[in-house]
Amino acid sequence: MTGNTLGERFLVLSFGESHGRCVGVVIDGCPAGLPLSMEDIQRELDLRRPGLSLVTTKRYEEDKVELLSGVFDGYTTGAPICALIWNKDVDSRPYEKMRKTPRPGHADLTAFLKYGGYNDWRGGGRFSGRITATFLMAGAIAKKLIRHTLGMEVIAYSIEIGGIKAKELSDNKIKRLRYSNEVRCADLEAAEKMKMKIMEELSKGDSVGGIVECKVLNVPIGLGEPVFSSLESDLSKALFSIPAVKGIEFGIGFGASRLKGSECNDPFSVKEGKVVTLTNRAGGILGGISNGMPIVLRLSFKPTPSIRKPQKTIHLDTLEEVDLIVPGRHDPCIVPRAVPVVEGMVACVMADHSLRAGQIPPIIKR
Amino acid sequence: MTGNTLGERFLVLSFGESHGRCVGVVIDGCPAGLPLSMEDIQRELDLRRPGLSLVTTKRYEEDKVELLSGVFDGYTTGAPICALIWNKDVDSRPYEKMRKTPRPGHADLTAFLKYGGYNDWRGGGRFSGRITATFLMAGAIAKKLIRHTLGMEVIAYSIEIGGIKAKELSDNKIKRLRYSNEVRCADLEAAEKMKMKIMEELSKGDSVGGIVECKVLNVPIGLGEPVFSSLESDLSKALFSIPAVKGIEFGIGFGASRLKGSECNDPFSVKEGKVVTLTNRAGGILGGISNGMPIVLRLSFKPTPSIRKPQKTIHLDTLEEVDLIVPGRHDPCIVPRAVPVVEGMVACVMADHSLRAGQIPPIIKR
Amino acid sequence: MTGNTLGERFLVLSFGESHGRCVGVVIDGCPAGLPLSMEDIQRELDLRRPGLSLVTTKRYEEDKVELLSGVFDGYTTGAPICALIWNKDVDSRPYEKMRKTPRPGHADLTAFLKYGGYNDWRGGGRFSGRITATFLMAGAIAKKLIRHTLGMEVIAYSIEIGGIKAKELSDNKIKRLRYSNEVRCADLEAAEKMKMKIMEELSKGDSVGGIVECKVLNVPIGLGEPVFSSLESDLSKALFSIPAVKGIEFGIGFGASRLKGSECNDPFSVKEGKVVTLTNRAGGILGGISNGMPIVLRLSFKPTPSIRKPQKTIHLDTLEEVDLIVPGRHDPCIVPRAVPVVEGMVACVMADHSLRAGQIPPIIKR
Amino acid sequence: MTGNTLGERFLVLSFGESHGRCVGVVIDGCPAGLPLSMEDIQRELDLRRPGLSLVTTKRYEEDKVELLSGVFDGYTTGAPICALIWNKDVDSRPYEKMRKTPRPGHADLTAFLKYGGYNDWRGGGRFSGRITATFLMAGAIAKKLIRHTLGMEVIAYSIEIGGIKAKELSDNKIKRLRYSNEVRCADLEAAEKMKMKIMEELSKGDSVGGIVECKVLNVPIGLGEPVFSSLESDLSKALFSIPAVKGIEFGIGFGASRLKGSECNDPFSVKEGKVVTLTNRAGGILGGISNGMPIVLRLSFKPTPSIRKPQKTIHLDTLEEVDLIVPGRHDPCIVPRAVPVVEGMVACVMADHSLRAGQIPPIIKR
Repeated sequence: MTGNTLGERFLVLSFGESHGRCVGVVIDGCPAGLPLSMEDIQRELDLRRPGLSLVTTKRYEEDKVELLSGVFDGYTTGAPICALIWNKDVDSRPYEKMRKTPRPGHADLTAFLKYGGYNDWRGGGRFSGRITATFLMAGAIAKKLIRHTLGMEVIAYSIEIGGIKAKELSDNKIKRLRYSNEVRCADLEAAEKMKMKIMEELSKGDSVGGIVECKVLNVPIGLGEPVFSSLESDLSKALFSIPAVKGIEFGIGFGASRLKGSECNDPFSVKEGKVVTLTNRAGGILGGISNGMPIVLRLSFKPTPSIRKPQKTIHLDTLEEVDLIVPGRHDPCIVPRAVPVVEGMVACVMADHSLRAGQIPPIIKR
Repeated sequence: MTGNTLGERFLVLSFGESHGRCVGVVIDGCPAGLPLSMEDIQRELDLRRPGLSLVTTKRYEEDKVELLSGVFDGYTTGAPICALIWNKDVDSRPYEKMRKTPRPGHADLTAFLKYGGYNDWRGGGRFSGRITATFLMAGAIAKKLIRHTLGMEVIAYSIEIGGIKAKELSDNKIKRLRYSNEVRCADLEAAEKMKMKIMEELSKGDSVGGIVECKVLNVPIGLGEPVFSSLESDLSKALFSIPAVKGIEFGIGFGASRLKGSECNDPFSVKEGKVVTLTNRAGGILGGISNGMPIVLRLSFKPTPSIRKPQKTIHLDTLEEVDLIVPGRHDPCIVPRAVPVVEGMVACVMADHSLRAGQIPPIIKR
Repeated sequence: MTGNTLGERFLVLSFGESHGRCVGVVIDGCPAGLPLSMEDIQRELDLRRPGLSLVTTKRYEEDKVELLSGVFDGYTTGAPICALIWNKDVDSRPYEKMRKTPRPGHADLTAFLKYGGYNDWRGGGRFSGRITATFLMAGAIAKKLIRHTLGMEVIAYSIEIGGIKAKELSDNKIKRLRYSNEVRCADLEAAEKMKMKIMEELSKGDSVGGIVECKVLNVPIGLGEPVFSSLESDLSKALFSIPAVKGIEFGIGFGASRLKGSECNDPFSVKEGKVVTLTNRAGGILGGISNGMPIVLRLSFKPTPSIRKPQKTIHLDTLEEVDLIVPGRHDPCIVPRAVPVVEGMVACVMADHSLRAGQIPPIIKR
Repeated sequence: MTGNTLGERFLVLSFGESHGRCVGVVIDGCPAGLPLSMEDIQRELDLRRPGLSLVTTKRYEEDKVELLSGVFDGYTTGAPICALIWNKDVDSRPYEKMRKTPRPGHADLTAFLKYGGYNDWRGGGRFSGRITATFLMAGAIAKKLIRHTLGMEVIAYSIEIGGIKAKELSDNKIKRLRYSNEVRCADLEAAEKMKMKIMEELSKGDSVGGIVECKVLNVPIGLGEPVFSSLESDLSKALFSIPAVKGIEFGIGFGASRLKGSECNDPFSVKEGKVVTLTNRAGGILGGISNGMPIVLRLSFKPTPSIRKPQKTIHLDTLEEVDLIVPGRHDPCIVPRAVPVVEGMVACVMADHSLRAGQIPPIIKR
């Protein structure tokens, strides 16, 4: 398999560049018979669309999805599904100037060296945040698939931005409130503070990072293929594809290293005839396999590397140190727009593993 | 690909069970011409061998590696390499009793349900820590390959156990001291305290977790295949295959969420004619691609789930709650034995990506 | 991997339907730095375009390729390349009538059953000959890659149509003449007879089959990954994806079963300092690995299943036997249009194996 | 994926060398709950065991299978199954002499060049016919799986050897008689002539080729994943891994090129409530998908390249032409021993595709 493909049975192939003609995705392996409309995909895309507010980047893109194949008469056909959005609001001039002065914290230098200078550098090319729109399109289809066939639900939300933490809330509250504000945080009080923190750092020409939590609800028991395709393995692989992610933890996560075994093990019990655990420090996964409890994971996002403050870099031709001021339009905080992307990538992995475990049939009956 | 395979070009297939005939591994894709002896593998295996001391489990296994194929006249041939160790010191009786009462924190229940009760439950079967010996055998070959061809080195070491933290040390000190003590910690003072902490909890019938840090030195620029096979993606996928890992972070990791962009970006500079970064908060990876700086990652390990304290579980036939006391021999702390396993898995990924990026040729010339 | 992907390192993903919005392809794994223009692809597409003459189908499609990604400033970037052609001249009405009466020799019935009736049946959907345009687009890029980097050349041509056989000709003559006539046969006398045979059967409402031979010239020694990814294995896998292929043979092929060992073995010799074989009954492949001699293979194509003569089929609702007359526009012989498609698929496999064997670097230097 | 792996969900990884310690195989992806004993595998191995008679090679190997993993209490566990046979009757001296004079018709030269001389040349190493024992072991498990769950049956048999053709027989006769004689031919009269032909050529120091036919009975409708993983594609890929195969055809095969459409199409009809075709020129596959009719394919085998007659080759050091007389023990005809190997490889592909199409569940219920 090559670098731009993800998944074994719900295969996602992402293509396109930030300032090229389009960004798109092909999904191969989606079963026949899933009701699917453009609206199913558009709804998700709209959640990350730039240009919505002061909080996010000012680049404006309509980002209207087109479905090129694999759907017929409102249902998936079992053939590959190609979906894309065209690039329209493109101004590559600021990038022209920076070509020889790689931006700190960005992939400019590594991409240049890996591809011998042939990479499309305009707007970050393949390394632009815009590529996550292709993750969202695939994720929208995966979400529909796992919800329609298994009732699974994926919810992500900001729990920390710029050092401001949200308080814990019930799943229902999270479901209802997470998209009600620009920072995608269900704790509305914290959301307001996060927004102010972002605006404050933006005014200083700086940026902030944060933490996104994600849960999967109604997970069937038995997903995950040990030993190398455990759920944790495949979820982390997919999620580290999102730019700016620097860490991931499941359940108790890094806290586990400070607990004793007697505190960390989740006791088994029975509830309504089903085996459950009384706590969920495992985050819904034991031995790499889902145990029926909600899957819980957290992702650390670094602050947007594009800032207006001057930074030290070098000129690729002269190898002299230069001061760089990154021009253009940028999110002062990636986290809010990453939230639906996290949901999408998690949904892709859950769809893939549901198919691998035989939980979703090759044809979805009407 | 199936669940027991890892890698694209340096393919690792793990097989065997804890109390079956053997645990073994086949590597397909190792280039021809690599000098390889049984000692290269035995040395690594010896680093995780149980029964060495009070600190680790009392099961005694000689764990003598056998090379069944793929090596001829002291060199790899380009054909698949099969290596295995036979199981000898096996007593399955304690597990017989626990069959219907899944151990909290273990894969007993999920394995039982996923495989319809057909799984080999003796000693945890495929979910035993003993399976990591197969990771080590593959890792030993990968280590040899990347060191011999590219001079790459992988070093892992405990930095926290049972809440006791080691201080930061130079790479040279770490290389020299990490295997000098039973807890695999280069800070000898902390090592002593960690050991005492482990003994203390063992005496109470409990267990502790910890954190392992791993660095890769002398990494060529350009490893990693965006967007879905980034180095972070493939390293995390491989490392979550190690039982008890609950979190991973690269470079600044979860700390990134509390920094500003101006603090988090690594400024570029030039040193001895090569582009470097003045700090390494990125952990050696930008845009999913190695930037030539050391790769730095940390893993959180939960405490050993097998403890002597009574725990709540249920009986699978009656679904009644029962108290379980886990018998048998167990590590009070997994971390020390996990250290060489982490090195092995990281080496496998680095070997795979070095091959994918064309940094290692298909034939290694004498 | 899923059903619509081919190749390990030069990955081809085909999408689209005959009467949907487009047919397209994504290639992932093409090295950076290959000069590539739309003309490179258009030239190949034009060789199979329908509507050129009486001999082929009358459906008219402009088939103008669009390059959506992966090429920048005239060179490949190392990112996925998406190419597609839009569907324009589409009339789905004849297929509407036949929906419940599967056409003998076609995939109507098997596609209906495999996909539970959700498949796009218009114009054969994914099973239309039009899908081979996606093979051609991928093949055009593969051809350019292996010619530009290794000087490899792929030539296919008709050697038998409707029972009329061409005589053997030199590679040079074949290169020059194979596309000079509508039946893609380098023996011009035979070509004329083949054409007349096709017209004769067309006038009777019938169709004919034939044999295509393909050679690969200037093949480097050492391509092919034993034991399961031998060159023969991967070439045959790719070529059986072309609709209507019912047999393949390499070198002496089915004739081998009637020879003695002493007649069949190719003696080794030396020519201009290089090891060669004096004959080429092996078809350029020994032990699954290229030996530097031209690769030679032949494919048997069945006659076009769409004929105007009445045929027996059944009605899917009533399960009663009915007589079917297939309406619409169809090739009376698939072979001529298949010729460039064979070249394309062979080129894809040669590109994939050249990359796997390390014969093509990850960056093509200017 | 690497060269020594086959299949997507029923993954076969072959390892070992002719004169190394063993030849073996790991299968990953076999569902849990399949009853499996060593006898199931031994029975198949015995069908190709050398040393049985004058007709086949005189090397004697007991070839007693050992099951190292994946089977517990008589059932598969869902974990990888490792099976191997140890090499015992090994005399590598004759090969020592031939190291620098590659045998015509063998992989000696291509293997030497591909692996830079590091390949294990003893007895042909990875290119020995003995490697097909690993295909048989995998095939035995696949056969059991598809018969136990779906009632599918795979039967192969010689239909031509040294120019002597068998007559067509009923499936029942073939099932009963094909293994009743040393040439694996169900037409007993022809079998006798084939045997005499082989002995005659053996006495002259020569060898003969032949044709094997294979049928799969009770195939469920809907196996095969278009467009690139059609049944024909994956069967041919697997079968070209068998040494000496030079051609494959399905159903009417190469004969298709001489038929008209009206003669070649199989008319649909209904029999006992099921859709069938009145003829089976398609060989059970339409559009790459099984149509429920028996799958029928034929393979051309070249004569054994190892003959006692002197042959022309070159010396690798001096590049001078030399006469070579191949010493050692060799089959004068590969075909009889290839027959069970063909069955095994076909079974592996049918198992893989049955899993891919969801026809075999992940757990086989008692």
